[in-house]
Amino acid sequence: MARVFNFGAGPAVLPLEVLEEAQRELLDFQGTGMSILESSHRGKEYDAVHQEALDNLRRLLDLDETYEILLLPGGASAQFAMVPLNLLEPGRTADYVLTGAWAKKAAAEAKIVGQVHVAANTMGASPARIPRPDELKLTPGAAYVHLTTNETIDGIQWKTLPKTEAPLVADMSSDILSGPRNYRDFACFYAGAQKNLGPSGLAVVAIQKDLLARCPASVPLFFRYRTHAEEHSLYNTPSTFSVYLLMLTTRWMLRQGLPTIFARNREKAAKIYAAIDESHGFYRGTAAQDSRSDMNVTFRLPNEALEEKFVKESSKAGMKALKGHRSVGGIRASIYNAFPMEGVDALVSFMREFARLNG
Amino acid sequence: MARVFNFGAGPAVLPLEVLEEAQRELLDFQGTGMSILESSHRGKEYDAVHQEALDNLRRLLDLDETYEILLLPGGASAQFAMVPLNLLEPGRTADYVLTGAWAKKAAAEAKIVGQVHVAANTMGASPARIPRPDELKLTPGAAYVHLTTNETIDGIQWKTLPKTEAPLVADMSSDILSGPRNYRDFACFYAGAQKNLGPSGLAVVAIQKDLLARCPASVPLFFRYRTHAEEHSLYNTPSTFSVYLLMLTTRWMLRQGLPTIFARNREKAAKIYAAIDESHGFYRGTAAQDSRSDMNVTFRLPNEALEEKFVKESSKAGMKALKGHRSVGGIRASIYNAFPMEGVDALVSFMREFARLNG
Repeated sequence: MARVFNFGAGPAVLPLEVLEEAQRELLDFQGTGMSILESSHRGKEYDAVHQEALDNLRRLLDLDETYEILLLPGGASAQFAMVPLNLLEPGRTADYVLTGAWAKKAAAEAKIVGQVHVAANTMGASPARIPRPDELKLTPGAAYVHLTTNETIDGIQWKTLPKTEAPLVADMSSDILSGPRNYRDFACFYAGAQKNLGPSGLAVVAIQKDLLARCPASVPLFFRYRTHAEEHSLYNTPSTFSVYLLMLTTRWMLRQGLPTIFARNREKAAKIYAAIDESHGFYRGTAAQDSRSDMNVTFRLPNEALEEKFVKESSKAGMKALKGHRSVGGIRASIYNAFPMEGVDALVSFMREFARLNG
Repeated sequence: MARVFNFGAGPAVLPLEVLEEAQRELLDFQGTGMSILESSHRGKEYDAVHQEALDNLRRLLDLDETYEILLLPGGASAQFAMVPLNLLEPGRTADYVLTGAWAKKAAAEAKIVGQVHVAANTMGASPARIPRPDELKLTPGAAYVHLTTNETIDGIQWKTLPKTEAPLVADMSSDILSGPRNYRDFACFYAGAQKNLGPSGLAVVAIQKDLLARCPASVPLFFRYRTHAEEHSLYNTPSTFSVYLLMLTTRWMLRQGLPTIFARNREKAAKIYAAIDESHGFYRGTAAQDSRSDMNVTFRLPNEALEEKFVKESSKAGMKALKGHRSVGGIRASIYNAFPMEGVDALVSFMREFARLNG
């Protein structure tokens, strides 16, 4: 089998070792004579998987027992609604920082639930960028401040967090556990698993336990964080195979070590940005220098015809899904934790050669 | 590998052919050089899977274009909340028929959202049973009538549907597509996939299109059926691997043919009920004769010590997960579509021998 380099933004590349292990035991999980797909979510085999997934996350995120960690269905999009349902009490205001399409979607759901104040808005800025600290207009006594740590479409990422009085809430779907970060700076954060943590169909949510009581009684049980916290994320039948793959992926991360993963991610991004910057303007990064994402590197070519050619020829050379998001065009290289260095080296070589031939 | 007989109530046994195909192509989906787990939910490979899953369901359920079919995260428990959020308008009443733990959970969520009337309640009846038609006290002008077609814990199943003026809504998690049924009798129905349709982490929802407009504007976008209908269940990143397995499972069902599956299910259940009825009272079915489920056969032994022995010895003989639900005890044999006849024959032989030795 020829494995391609998958630059897709998510669902994204998984560690080969994880896929191989899943394949090996797909018909017979640890000698049980059945697949993990067929195992009861109340049985001891799945329970060990579930518990290890939660334990691995707690170790990797370095969170103490003042935080609940939840595994919930529906990815980040469901959290866009659950966050305000649980944390935006009637009569209060939530501050949202609009940095791109994902932040906007989160704010749109919150507006349906309650009062939203846009604390800053850099959408449409060119180059794309994260707001400066002095641009944030925060609401005194806000229920929380919400931001999106990394925007996959425009390829921008928060480097320094704002200091806020109100609890800080973040969508970390596309950069969770990809670089150094103090997760205790956040009162609540969430991430769809399908970029850095495993397969689609699952969100990881972490929340300070003292915030669980905020949720009004008018919210259905299923949408309360408290319900899932009390049942250790087994209130309903979870997507057991997704949890299993998240467990294998986080186990792989612990084996690699976070410092190794972080250094490799930094190096991968730096190599592609260097190729952009050294191209004498043939490639133009779409993100401001100080907002450049280490996860999604976005750039343009001199014209759309060349971009199309770039996508077609890179695909032929085994580098897949480099086409930018349909809403913005251009090129996007998503290089999450599991994306291998060899793929970045191949891309950089390809970029240099393509610029030489077409520049 | 010795494959056991898995009598678990769900996540449950999958067709061996489905597991083998998933295993074969887990690292390389159709020559793409990547796993279906790594494929973009916006790419053409996954799109074909997604569309086939929906098409297969439409064929199997025999629903025309007046129905939307949705693939949603979170299983049936999320639907307990989404049904009233979408269909129980302020000021109206929904009728719920309480037949067991699952119906009760569905009604509990509806009570948080709006006004609920209990149209009948057979919970705690011994033997467990479905209400008679004359027991149903329906609300004139009700927003809808909700029932649970099969209760996994007590092993009871509706054989004849009530005639209702209000739209009929049903939780079919544990018996969807397991026997003859006219799905157009329902205005809306839903089922967690992990029993008859594939893996956990996914609910199939079917709803008459003219009901999509009912949802109040106060409901977050993610929890509106309309949102998912407009985006063909791709509003968010779905649990792509779960949809893939549902596609393979429904393809397997089409290959087998529903009449074959239905006849086999009937025969499997009849064999175990016969073993109960022929045991001269050693085994006692917990469901009334006319309410007996074809999916979950529940029975007791003369005492709990014998039940424990039964579970232990059957497990040693390769028949797993026969222990009844922790809330009721006893024995439960769940025999969904993918459960093989040989497993039923093995159980019946075991039951006869166990009764002979311990009776």
